[in-house]
Amino acid sequence: MTDDVQAPNGDTSTGDMLAAMGKAAVFTPADFDRLLETGLPQAHRAGIRTREMGHGSITLTMPVSEDFLRPGGTVSGPTMFALADVALYGAVLSRAGHIVLAVTSNMTITFLRRPPARPLVAHARIVRMGRSLAYGEVTLYSEGEDDPVAHATGTYAIPRG
Amino acid sequence: MTDDVQAPNGDTSTGDMLAAMGKAAVFTPADFDRLLETGLPQAHRAGIRTREMGHGSITLTMPVSEDFLRPGGTVSGPTMFALADVALYGAVLSRAGHIVLAVTSNMTITFLRRPPARPLVAHARIVRMGRSLAYGEVTLYSEGEDDPVAHATGTYAIPRG
Amino acid sequence: MTDDVQAPNGDTSTGDMLAAMGKAAVFTPADFDRLLETGLPQAHRAGIRTREMGHGSITLTMPVSEDFLRPGGTVSGPTMFALADVALYGAVLSRAGHIVLAVTSNMTITFLRRPPARPLVAHARIVRMGRSLAYGEVTLYSEGEDDPVAHATGTYAIPRG
Amino acid sequence: MTDDVQAPNGDTSTGDMLAAMGKAAVFTPADFDRLLETGLPQAHRAGIRTREMGHGSITLTMPVSEDFLRPGGTVSGPTMFALADVALYGAVLSRAGHIVLAVTSNMTITFLRRPPARPLVAHARIVRMGRSLAYGEVTLYSEGEDDPVAHATGTYAIPRG
Repeated sequence: MTDDVQAPNGDTSTGDMLAAMGKAAVFTPADFDRLLETGLPQAHRAGIRTREMGHGSITLTMPVSEDFLRPGGTVSGPTMFALADVALYGAVLSRAGHIVLAVTSNMTITFLRRPPARPLVAHARIVRMGRSLAYGEVTLYSEGEDDPVAHATGTYAIPRG
Repeated sequence: MTDDVQAPNGDTSTGDMLAAMGKAAVFTPADFDRLLETGLPQAHRAGIRTREMGHGSITLTMPVSEDFLRPGGTVSGPTMFALADVALYGAVLSRAGHIVLAVTSNMTITFLRRPPARPLVAHARIVRMGRSLAYGEVTLYSEGEDDPVAHATGTYAIPRG
Repeated sequence: MTDDVQAPNGDTSTGDMLAAMGKAAVFTPADFDRLLETGLPQAHRAGIRTREMGHGSITLTMPVSEDFLRPGGTVSGPTMFALADVALYGAVLSRAGHIVLAVTSNMTITFLRRPPARPLVAHARIVRMGRSLAYGEVTLYSEGEDDPVAHATGTYAIPRG
Repeated sequence: MTDDVQAPNGDTSTGDMLAAMGKAAVFTPADFDRLLETGLPQAHRAGIRTREMGHGSITLTMPVSEDFLRPGGTVSGPTMFALADVALYGAVLSRAGHIVLAVTSNMTITFLRRPPARPLVAHARIVRMGRSLAYGEVTLYSEGEDDPVAHATGTYAIPRG
């Protein structure tokens, strides 16, 4: 996430819902899916959904889509990057327990092997949650396979509110 | 580019054109735009175009689009990553002088400041072209502004043919 | 490790011992400590020792030393990088089960918090062992503390013999 | 630099000199060499010297030394990382025009080719100097050769004083 989730554009319905969600004591997979739907519609339209969530960890899935395939039927790198980025954001929220404004500061991704044209699974976990920076790692798998297709690490900046 | 540009899927029209392009002594901006149109249609539909090209360097532009904006009117990180990835690939081809099969091995991107909702400009250059690995850097700007919005480095693997 | 462990400089005693070690069916912590002593003397002199080793994982420790401290009594970044680099190499060997010639291709390290002037502990694990590239991650801790001080990921190239 | 240059350890002579240097309107190569001598003695003992400095750029040189060589006569990766880290710090100071307290936040380094046992040259430049983060890149060369041996990018955090 390279931008504040909450749009400073006078969109009160989103703001109201986000505020209400922010009051939840525990952040759930359903919470994150709703957040994607309203705050990151592109990710939602891509079919990204939350499979499970822990305290500082999250698992997302993303189906295969013609839009994200390269010739030869493999998932594109930018698609994997986008999934890793959203997953890391989800891990930050799962650790915080509520919605926080956070922007991606940097990310490193290594593509380990060519993924087949199958759904992707992303496991993200927070390595360290600082006061203003959250750092974590994401492992991407092809659904049903143990051999990872990509791995990423990244830092999210959490602006002081 | 995380996949062979040339699809092993029996698409002869693309294969023919690619082969013909491969015979060109010099790789031009128009060549790369044609390659995006047939080999990376998602990048082409996003409006990515080649502004200029040197030997081991390239400048691409990408217009603003609703699809790539976050709430608040800023360009998303994955969009910037995708542009940087394509730009680095273009720099590899500009250095090789013809189409090569190359896949992204890894990339690191740092988001320096929030880009406004304006076209992006990507300058990519090859730092070193090895026998099987090409490494380069990409600087992303907001059209008309000198202060970069992001910077990336990455490695492309060039499989031995 | 950015260089072949085995020096092509006519040092037969090292070569003999390395060859003998290479025949071992399982690579042990003592094996790695011996390898550091002869092949990476700077690391050995720094006091880096192997605490434990698994299949594709390793734990190293490094004592505090005046040479590696910055004013203020903290461990320097390059020192942490060096430890992470050696640890990742150890993880590669633990996965291979014997000595392999491997060179560091790239590494990314994030410094999470200022480490106190205490021994460092490095946990390294292989994320994926390819045919010519090994990729893994390393977490650095201050002895006795759960809050990591640094985290790194890196790729080792394994030249075909 | 992963630590405050100025040691909070009551060392008044260093503090006095640093304060005096801080008053200089322009930061010179001689200033940086003096800073290394007092603040980063390990770098100074390694023979790192400033060749030239611009506004946001710096060139450092480092001689060959037995301590930093791997078997086979090549420079070790951690040695190159250390040089790149110091060079980036120098670039930060050259941009600020005076000594600033800055700590390395993260660095990515790619080893491009095996360097011969010759002096290293490091060119560092600031890509963007933010209010609290400075980001730049460093290219490492073997003295007298145009083909780079390594390339790095990194972020320095500049604590608010």
